[in-house]
Amino acid sequence: MNMFKIGVYGYGNLGRGVVTALKAAPDMEPTFIFTRRDPASIEADVPVHPADQVLDFKDKVDALILCGGSATDLPVQTPALVKDFTVVDSFDTHANIPAHFTAVHNAAIENGSIALISAGWDPGLFSLNRAYASAILPEGTDYTFWGKGVSQGHSDAVRRIAGVLDARQYTIPVPEALHAVQNGETPSLTTRQKHTRYCYVVAAEDADKAKIEKEICEMPNYFAEYDTTVEFISAEEMARDHSGLPHGGFVIRTGKTLDGTSHTISYSLKLASNPSFTASVLVAYTRALIRMRRAGETGCKTVLDVPPALLSPLSDEELRRTLL
Amino acid sequence: MNMFKIGVYGYGNLGRGVVTALKAAPDMEPTFIFTRRDPASIEADVPVHPADQVLDFKDKVDALILCGGSATDLPVQTPALVKDFTVVDSFDTHANIPAHFTAVHNAAIENGSIALISAGWDPGLFSLNRAYASAILPEGTDYTFWGKGVSQGHSDAVRRIAGVLDARQYTIPVPEALHAVQNGETPSLTTRQKHTRYCYVVAAEDADKAKIEKEICEMPNYFAEYDTTVEFISAEEMARDHSGLPHGGFVIRTGKTLDGTSHTISYSLKLASNPSFTASVLVAYTRALIRMRRAGETGCKTVLDVPPALLSPLSDEELRRTLL
Repeated sequence: MNMFKIGVYGYGNLGRGVVTALKAAPDMEPTFIFTRRDPASIEADVPVHPADQVLDFKDKVDALILCGGSATDLPVQTPALVKDFTVVDSFDTHANIPAHFTAVHNAAIENGSIALISAGWDPGLFSLNRAYASAILPEGTDYTFWGKGVSQGHSDAVRRIAGVLDARQYTIPVPEALHAVQNGETPSLTTRQKHTRYCYVVAAEDADKAKIEKEICEMPNYFAEYDTTVEFISAEEMARDHSGLPHGGFVIRTGKTLDGTSHTISYSLKLASNPSFTASVLVAYTRALIRMRRAGETGCKTVLDVPPALLSPLSDEELRRTLL
Repeated sequence: MNMFKIGVYGYGNLGRGVVTALKAAPDMEPTFIFTRRDPASIEADVPVHPADQVLDFKDKVDALILCGGSATDLPVQTPALVKDFTVVDSFDTHANIPAHFTAVHNAAIENGSIALISAGWDPGLFSLNRAYASAILPEGTDYTFWGKGVSQGHSDAVRRIAGVLDARQYTIPVPEALHAVQNGETPSLTTRQKHTRYCYVVAAEDADKAKIEKEICEMPNYFAEYDTTVEFISAEEMARDHSGLPHGGFVIRTGKTLDGTSHTISYSLKLASNPSFTASVLVAYTRALIRMRRAGETGCKTVLDVPPALLSPLSDEELRRTLL
């Protein structure tokens, strides 16, 4: 089999996950890693090159998977790199997706190339399920619950507070709300009624813990709208009990058909490692995007534009025979 | 908005569901019903015509939704009608899908037309979820559980037994097996360990109930491999408690990424009416197929070939902004 050669651009948690996921794919291989750090400092069994030399590898990879952050990396990198590569990213700032799409689409169309943005699980698999369920049950109500899992953005926000040495924030669905929705009820839920937030914090020895707790619970946008619990633990407890990055959640739609009958469609994920799973989604969509490029497609795509069969290494015949 | 005009071919439970689902779609309308019965005998607020005059309506509909049975109707009707129409069916005999696909595909290619087969929930939405989950987690184990719900094929099989006036068969997942799989375990399960079968039977007054029960429980392929319970009830109880056709089920895949972390992807449906929901799936895929036809595609398609965005009446921009 001709293996698809993939460049991995950025080598943090997500980049490492992508290299691992590529090794599990029967038809793809991690061919190069590109990093802004000193390549000599990276431990990997794949050749590592400086990010600013990536253009030298233009004809040596079938696609680049971009593993930078959504805040400052991807808004610059994806529109720039799509000029010379087939690129896939996991841009996840929901509110900025339309602007990111436009920037990437224009660059792709100008250069006759292709990109897929916002692959992952939300945006990504959760978006797919919202789209399928609402197309099938046009009269209905959608709910998305996240967790139980570690929110890296919220953990970072707590870490920025004076006196905080380390922090891990878990987002947790409110069980009563989740169960009501799973049972086909369609309650109106406020932000506070849907999720609670639980923070484990390692504080400096001389820190004012009451002040830290108050600062967390009152932080606008991040915590003020939620019931938040803060628990102070030792650095040892943090390392022992909270080193993983589990996550997951639920997308549930309950709708009525016009004959008056009710139907509930539920999708859920329980992930031991958020970056490992997100990486697996990126790899499957990279396979699909390379195929779409070879079929002549160009422009910016999202998970909503990809026929499911293209994600699989199996042939169409095999899929129909074994999965349909 | 230009409404897509849809012909509904066959007017049993599924056909009635399709007419209802079309009325809920903002961009589609049920334009004609075609039936093998006497059109005058059909109560409907849509014009009804004899099935054998369908060719006269070739230029008056954008698509035909075929609502016949998989045993004898669709294997003949879908390849015949695709010659003159864009057609969608819900062919659900899993083992015969490859042969049905080939027959429909050849007829479609010869005539430059398009069809989509096996839309519904299994095959259909469950197939999609098996395909997505196995592409994303290549190392893993898949489970499909059906129920609790009424199996029409099994109910029919019981009704054919001498002395049985009416019957309703419920397929029920074994709770211990389902919960183990939902918790990320990957047990090896026999047919008997996955589902039980529960039959409500109305027997003739003079019938030998013990003999009926034995005949049900020992029926090969249908019941012999399962723990089956038979309960005799009155015709009144049947009408009062078992007039609906609820169904549903679960598709669950647990897989490991190569870093050793485990991930569980779950999809489930809880449907108050199997035919109403199946009809809603057929209608969404008909919208998609008309769009694919207008974009120049031909041949036989399945749910695995359809980009999710095509199912929705919303524009791509709206989907990206509101659902992604």
